[in-house]
Amino acid sequence: MNNVVTPVAEKQLLEIARSKGLETGRDRLAAMKPQCGFGELGTCCRICYMGPCRIDPFGEGPKKGVCGLSPDTMVARNLLREATGGASSHVGHARHLLITLRDALDGEAPYEIRGEDRVFALGKVFGLAVEGRSAKQVCRELVDIALQDFGRQDNKPNNWLSKRAPAMEREMWEKLGLTYSNPHNEIETAMHASSMGNDADPVTLLLRTLKIGLVDGWSGLALCTDVQDILFGTPQVTTVESNVGVLEENSVNIAVHGHNPVLSEKILEWAGKLDKEAVAAGAERINLVGVCCTGNELSMRHGVPLAAHNAQSELILATGAVDCMIVDIQCIWPSLPQLAKCFDTAFITTDEMVHIPGARHIEFEPHHADESAQEIVRAGIEAFAKRKGKAVHIPQLKTTAVAGLSLEAIVGILSKVDAKDPLKPVIDNVANGNILGFAGIVGCASIKFRDGAMTEEMIKALLANNVLVVATGCIAHICAQDGLLTSEATGKYCGDGLKAVLTALGQAAGLGGPLPPVWHMGSCVDNSRIVDLLGAVAGRLGVKISQLPAVGSAPELVQEKAISIGCSFLALGTPLHVAPAPRILGSQSVTKVLTEDLVNITGAKVFVECDPKKAAAGVVAIIKEKRAALGL
Amino acid sequence: MNNVVTPVAEKQLLEIARSKGLETGRDRLAAMKPQCGFGELGTCCRICYMGPCRIDPFGEGPKKGVCGLSPDTMVARNLLREATGGASSHVGHARHLLITLRDALDGEAPYEIRGEDRVFALGKVFGLAVEGRSAKQVCRELVDIALQDFGRQDNKPNNWLSKRAPAMEREMWEKLGLTYSNPHNEIETAMHASSMGNDADPVTLLLRTLKIGLVDGWSGLALCTDVQDILFGTPQVTTVESNVGVLEENSVNIAVHGHNPVLSEKILEWAGKLDKEAVAAGAERINLVGVCCTGNELSMRHGVPLAAHNAQSELILATGAVDCMIVDIQCIWPSLPQLAKCFDTAFITTDEMVHIPGARHIEFEPHHADESAQEIVRAGIEAFAKRKGKAVHIPQLKTTAVAGLSLEAIVGILSKVDAKDPLKPVIDNVANGNILGFAGIVGCASIKFRDGAMTEEMIKALLANNVLVVATGCIAHICAQDGLLTSEATGKYCGDGLKAVLTALGQAAGLGGPLPPVWHMGSCVDNSRIVDLLGAVAGRLGVKISQLPAVGSAPELVQEKAISIGCSFLALGTPLHVAPAPRILGSQSVTKVLTEDLVNITGAKVFVECDPKKAAAGVVAIIKEKRAALGL
Repeated sequence: MNNVVTPVAEKQLLEIARSKGLETGRDRLAAMKPQCGFGELGTCCRICYMGPCRIDPFGEGPKKGVCGLSPDTMVARNLLREATGGASSHVGHARHLLITLRDALDGEAPYEIRGEDRVFALGKVFGLAVEGRSAKQVCRELVDIALQDFGRQDNKPNNWLSKRAPAMEREMWEKLGLTYSNPHNEIETAMHASSMGNDADPVTLLLRTLKIGLVDGWSGLALCTDVQDILFGTPQVTTVESNVGVLEENSVNIAVHGHNPVLSEKILEWAGKLDKEAVAAGAERINLVGVCCTGNELSMRHGVPLAAHNAQSELILATGAVDCMIVDIQCIWPSLPQLAKCFDTAFITTDEMVHIPGARHIEFEPHHADESAQEIVRAGIEAFAKRKGKAVHIPQLKTTAVAGLSLEAIVGILSKVDAKDPLKPVIDNVANGNILGFAGIVGCASIKFRDGAMTEEMIKALLANNVLVVATGCIAHICAQDGLLTSEATGKYCGDGLKAVLTALGQAAGLGGPLPPVWHMGSCVDNSRIVDLLGAVAGRLGVKISQLPAVGSAPELVQEKAISIGCSFLALGTPLHVAPAPRILGSQSVTKVLTEDLVNITGAKVFVECDPKKAAAGVVAIIKEKRAALGL
Repeated sequence: MNNVVTPVAEKQLLEIARSKGLETGRDRLAAMKPQCGFGELGTCCRICYMGPCRIDPFGEGPKKGVCGLSPDTMVARNLLREATGGASSHVGHARHLLITLRDALDGEAPYEIRGEDRVFALGKVFGLAVEGRSAKQVCRELVDIALQDFGRQDNKPNNWLSKRAPAMEREMWEKLGLTYSNPHNEIETAMHASSMGNDADPVTLLLRTLKIGLVDGWSGLALCTDVQDILFGTPQVTTVESNVGVLEENSVNIAVHGHNPVLSEKILEWAGKLDKEAVAAGAERINLVGVCCTGNELSMRHGVPLAAHNAQSELILATGAVDCMIVDIQCIWPSLPQLAKCFDTAFITTDEMVHIPGARHIEFEPHHADESAQEIVRAGIEAFAKRKGKAVHIPQLKTTAVAGLSLEAIVGILSKVDAKDPLKPVIDNVANGNILGFAGIVGCASIKFRDGAMTEEMIKALLANNVLVVATGCIAHICAQDGLLTSEATGKYCGDGLKAVLTALGQAAGLGGPLPPVWHMGSCVDNSRIVDLLGAVAGRLGVKISQLPAVGSAPELVQEKAISIGCSFLALGTPLHVAPAPRILGSQSVTKVLTEDLVNITGAKVFVECDPKKAAAGVVAIIKEKRAALGL
């Protein structure tokens, strides 16, 4: 798709894997080609047994499904189901956290409130009395408010959306009928509406998809981030190491992979406590490293190294140096235990919901978190004992990266410049053109793009155009590995305006160098932090989020969750770049709604572009339009 | 698939449709062939954007998806999502009813409690005080108990399952980990578990599919039936007319189509009240007829004629005589408004969730039920005024049918034979072999089988083997049209044993003739009545439901709902025939679990057979095995 070379980590790890005769996703992707065009275009329906139906939008074949469904409806219905799969994942994650927090408050789960600031801040958002009360007291009320949303059948506004979301957007959603009450009602209804013989109107289906996006955004992402910050603390700026070189030949290498810090925080705790046992087993130490989003969570809060993004999750096993890979939920490739078996690697599933053939399952249930975490860490030490002395192949690739840029951390930095109006320095520099605008580059790392450098190239082109970038998820791993989360990158890649701003800000904040040009804001659920940032800037300016010179991008789309996150941004009014194309191109009308008409509904629009330079140019063009509309 | 001729209604209606140049589902099905083999085998996955992936289980292509997913997992995951689509539909239907009932009790929706018996009976089931209390008082507590299930995050047993389900099966489900707490949690988790990178074990996915079957069975079907009986009364035996000949050239023909009697009961009420307006418009009367399951609901409770099953929903429009088709939820083909446009037919969608291009939308919201119902009925009268005098083509086909055989109605009949032990006459006749066993033939009518007579042939073969048949859903429409719901059918089709029993029972109960050999137990959600019947018989014998000589069958599978209903029967231990094959054949292991291993888990197993005689032979063989195991 582009001419740049394969990132060096991929290159070296793939060579290692191939030399060992290991099959990887790239081999399976090559074997799967050509991939089904009906599926790619969205015009495949197997929702009822009169089907399966397929419609070739270019061809001479049937123009409707057996039930009479148009390709437009087929596409819209499939998209709604994708978004529902994503929203269910985030809502499930949030609910698990919420119940863990409730049980912790009840003394039934060994977790504490480390984010007291966050409790009091949220207490104010929800209009609770906070003066003179303990964090526990306020927190218990917050938990009740959050649980009320899941239990309500009164059709009253969802608490989390109606108190946490920005006011102007909330008003817009109310007018559009996009607000919701109980997130579970919406998931049930989305599955119901998309079953055979219900909603057949592509427009109402697309509106429901936006609504599911809001469910994802507020009862998923925002609730996840809020509860994670309450339980584990709000991230503050930290420097971490990144890339496969963080593995250590002579240490017990434990990789946590997945999304839920309820597991990985306990693994971190017990890795520390059991370090002596590792030493007794002949290791230098326990070396905990992070993969995918749970890696982001630990790096943001504890400086744990970022070993691999999702598309490298197979590849780091090829080193033979991972003694234990511990997984929780989401994005865990089923191939992983098979690869682990080629080495002494213990591959451990932990979630009640996630079982993978070939894995060892040690159920991790928050009530018995300490016992399970010990057992799991010891499994890593045992695996090391078997592996010790055998050859491993760890590419010596390692970068440093600044992480932990939560909204609170960003405001903290900016406060050192202007304590009374922290956002002013940023806004002034947008106004004077030093900062052209903002891009949130988020989501997955896809092997469809990892033989090149889709994300890196796109971001560098944006930086050269003075677009400040914030990143989350596996995109943040890619940026870290490419050195984009460093002060040096500011000098190397930014246009003069952005360079000047980041340098001045870094200096004023006493950081000893420029701020990095890409701000690592966290995991995929931490896209809520981006929303909060956009909301804060828009609120400060008194404009709608859709008016900001800000664009979102998921340049390497893989997961249903990325679809639902994308929909939450579209509902917010944020224009969105995506690659590869979502499965909408089989419908001219759905494509038109999402790429054109939506501008007149929420202010957002989608554009698809698989070439990184052209994608960046598209983002820059939109930002310039937005600036012009604001009179900048 | 078989050699019998097309049912006469289909034959004549198709000729009419073709003579008018109308496209129907049969034309689109023919154009769609050959249908996608990957889809049919279940080995197509488009859950993430590394795909779409397809695996040919017979071929030389890839053996795994890009993420490493095996075809076994692919098949199990797709099946879980189908079941979740079905369960979401039934749970959504139940929740809508429950909220309507709550609002009616609060005086906010114009509905009453017509099923006081049902309220008190359920009150006892749930251990409520009933003596000296009003139905309203008890009902309010029942509503609270039901709503509690939707709100709970305490992981405590689901009320509706734990109080309504038979004890032995409940115990089995607890041991298997199949019981649930909040149905919404399960829908969310099923979507989450089946998203990319979560559950990859076909066995745990299949167990979760059974669990979703229980969600469907108890928080869907049973809750629907219970609340419908509370609101509209428990059905009692009644005789109805059936088939397209129930349309009347000179009347305002209003067809209600869908599933939710909250709409159709009000249409029935206002059709009566506005009859004079119809007469004033030149009609003889308003002739309300039922299509699909809402037709079953009205026929069971009010003797409203059964005009058409789902696979005929297009065809009755071809008569030109339907003045108004009013639809609510589920199984509404998107082609219908297009066909309606060829005539003066008003096609009206009513549910907030269901919009269809080309339809007129009159939102029916229970709080304003009377106003909306009037508007809708008047739209029918207006359409008649336009249609009046134009040629219509109504095949003169009409049969009578006995409907309304709720469990309570059946027990009522049997009580006339043995007031103290009503089930005894049935059980004695099973023991002596007059009744070989029972078959519940349920679910959809499929155009894939409606050029033949799959269901009719299969049922006749069962009756000849002295198998007593109960039917629901569109299968009941098929039986009604074929004359199987009559006393005459008993003499015509039953083996000597069954004939003798039904004749004796009919006589003893003073019905003036034999009981029909096929008992119409209601709509698709009324499959819960079959479960209650099985539970009552098993309870009376002190055996598990899986030990009964009883088999379920969905001989013309169309809907995701049929998959979730099927799973609820599999969880119960009932062997199940199905045609066409569910999308499992691409996985040997999933096929083996469902067709063989499940016997050792719940006692159930699936068999697939598309030939009606062989299907009946398969059912008879299972029944004989069960009898032998019971020592009969």
